[in-house]
Amino acid sequence: MINKLSRMLCLASVALLGACASSGYNMPSALRGTGDLGVIIERASGSVQIVDSSQLTSIASVPGLGDLSHASLVYSRDGRYAYVFGRDGGLTKVDLLKGAIALRVMQAGNSIGGAISQDGRFVAAQNYTPGGVKIFKADTLELVADIPAAYGSEGKFSKVVGLADAPGNRFVWSLFDAGEIWTADVSDIKTPRVEKFKNIGREPYDGLITPDGRYYMAGLFGEDGMALLDMWHPEKGVRRILDGYGKGSEKLPVYKMPHLRGWAVAGRFAYVPAIGRHEVLVMDTESWKEVARVKVAGQPVFVIARPDGRQIWVNFAFPDNGQVQVIDVETRNVIKHLQPGKAVLHMEFTPRGEAVWISARDDNRVVVYDTSNFAVRKELPAQAPSGIFFTHRAARIGF
Amino acid sequence: MINKLSRMLCLASVALLGACASSGYNMPSALRGTGDLGVIIERASGSVQIVDSSQLTSIASVPGLGDLSHASLVYSRDGRYAYVFGRDGGLTKVDLLKGAIALRVMQAGNSIGGAISQDGRFVAAQNYTPGGVKIFKADTLELVADIPAAYGSEGKFSKVVGLADAPGNRFVWSLFDAGEIWTADVSDIKTPRVEKFKNIGREPYDGLITPDGRYYMAGLFGEDGMALLDMWHPEKGVRRILDGYGKGSEKLPVYKMPHLRGWAVAGRFAYVPAIGRHEVLVMDTESWKEVARVKVAGQPVFVIARPDGRQIWVNFAFPDNGQVQVIDVETRNVIKHLQPGKAVLHMEFTPRGEAVWISARDDNRVVVYDTSNFAVRKELPAQAPSGIFFTHRAARIGF
Repeated sequence: MINKLSRMLCLASVALLGACASSGYNMPSALRGTGDLGVIIERASGSVQIVDSSQLTSIASVPGLGDLSHASLVYSRDGRYAYVFGRDGGLTKVDLLKGAIALRVMQAGNSIGGAISQDGRFVAAQNYTPGGVKIFKADTLELVADIPAAYGSEGKFSKVVGLADAPGNRFVWSLFDAGEIWTADVSDIKTPRVEKFKNIGREPYDGLITPDGRYYMAGLFGEDGMALLDMWHPEKGVRRILDGYGKGSEKLPVYKMPHLRGWAVAGRFAYVPAIGRHEVLVMDTESWKEVARVKVAGQPVFVIARPDGRQIWVNFAFPDNGQVQVIDVETRNVIKHLQPGKAVLHMEFTPRGEAVWISARDDNRVVVYDTSNFAVRKELPAQAPSGIFFTHRAARIGF
Repeated sequence: MINKLSRMLCLASVALLGACASSGYNMPSALRGTGDLGVIIERASGSVQIVDSSQLTSIASVPGLGDLSHASLVYSRDGRYAYVFGRDGGLTKVDLLKGAIALRVMQAGNSIGGAISQDGRFVAAQNYTPGGVKIFKADTLELVADIPAAYGSEGKFSKVVGLADAPGNRFVWSLFDAGEIWTADVSDIKTPRVEKFKNIGREPYDGLITPDGRYYMAGLFGEDGMALLDMWHPEKGVRRILDGYGKGSEKLPVYKMPHLRGWAVAGRFAYVPAIGRHEVLVMDTESWKEVARVKVAGQPVFVIARPDGRQIWVNFAFPDNGQVQVIDVETRNVIKHLQPGKAVLHMEFTPRGEAVWISARDDNRVVVYDTSNFAVRKELPAQAPSGIFFTHRAARIGF
């Protein structure tokens, strides 16, 4: 009898909750999986949109995230929360299921992104001011480690760039001003084990880790070439690769620094944006030597492989930033030239690559393409959209 | 006023729901992400356990799935539902958030697994009896395509094995009795475009697709060697690889057929269970030739790479099925020998590889190891556990 009554009450509660959800009151949304959710950064308004990549719809808009120019994010291990790193040093934990901010801290004066540890327990932010890395508990955002990027003998702190996660619960990052690469093992968060690699080259401006988490590469702005660290063999130190890759050509003005984190590794080849040139470089990841160049429509910014590695999609710096080109990996030819809109800032593939979402900031829209036939499947309105991030990143190394 | 009232009702409903959940009545669980969920098949009892790989806990047990010997499953695009393929032809859609069966159909007399299309819209089951592939809508389990494995001129139907998904919304599978490989493009589900490759070798017994979805390989039981199809170039047909890989050695009795779907691709090398031998073969995926063999403790069944490709974990057929060995990819040496329990049937890595879950059927437990130091992190009770599957599979090609 009591059982029957409790059952009726439960059913009534469910019915009421349904009504609550549709009334617009900010209640927990209906039960749903998080595997096909994503977040679009709306940089001008300091808000994010939560989207559904199955239904191609926007689910919620969350305001109040501060300065989101150059913002990026990582996902919690369960795919429910996005940790958004704002340019103003704000770190915001957004609940995708409730469409609301769960937690928010101001953790620095000027920040440029972050990463989440392999086991999902720690979120790390890379900061320009004060230069260093701060590490937070993923559940509470409590500060648990502070690793200032001190260098030289004059008490200076370097801007930190290129922060990535690596297997073994490690983080790896570069010091722009110092020309160093640091790694930290956070298995015991009370005493992170930090290792420093000095004299790796001038002005590392960004970095990435290969999809298997083995090789960390930092691009150098201060000289031609890149710095490579084999994370399986840190004892071997950092080596220089692609040395002098701009040699013999006249320097072009650089309109926008390329993003290395988007670099594409397809099969054994990595596709790398050339700095200042209208070219994508193809590098053999066994010899770490350049094997080819592909001429493209402008200075590449993001060079991203479709998840199956058969296509490379490229967007460009001003004044060519209304275009996107697609390179066929087998022939290394440009096979498609698209014009998604004004000021294309980012591209994000769905997990298995059947579609790609592209943000066109100055047209205030996100365009979804079918990658098999380049048809537009959908256009979604967004306020000055920049980065787009799907939740499957939670399950990938280096995302 | 109405607003205030509805707000109070909503809050009351939430409170009631909380009580319902803790009372054990099968209500929707609390809001949660699905990215760290998984399912353990309990083969003897026809039930599955739903587990949380962050908390290392069991969340729910779902009975009523029929004969689960040799059962496998795939996940919906959103990670909420598991499609469990039972040996008795039952196809069950399990709701991980509610801990309950959402839908169930008997779709064949004898079935051996399945796959989900790249876009997540279609679930395909491979059947022994009647021999063929049936395709269902993922949301409703409505049958939308039936592709009998007819072969020869006598009206026979072949057992189907090695079904996998491939980019371009394709499926690919092998016909055991016919010695054929078929592919189907289901972009237009009303008229699936089926292509047949004949005379690919005798008795293909299982197949797998490489992580990038390009190469499909079928193992041949009726002869030494494997059949390889380049899905980027079906017009080139199927070629034979590893021809005569057992040549020159005496045949051993085969206690259990290895599972090919677990094959490991680490960097450019694939690690392949030898049939009947106490060896793991190492194959170069550029030349498709054998380059090394690793001696192991028994006849390998699953040979699986840690997600970062640095270790290969191997379990074995009877009488060596209480053991697991770990191969270091760089040195190709066995670096660890574990004894998780009696009758080890499956191993599943967490998405970024910090842990592995191993089922020990005859000890009725699942053991979770830390892959960095091989420490046991947890043991969970389970009734005759076999396959373990985490939801990140939804985002991967060929899983």
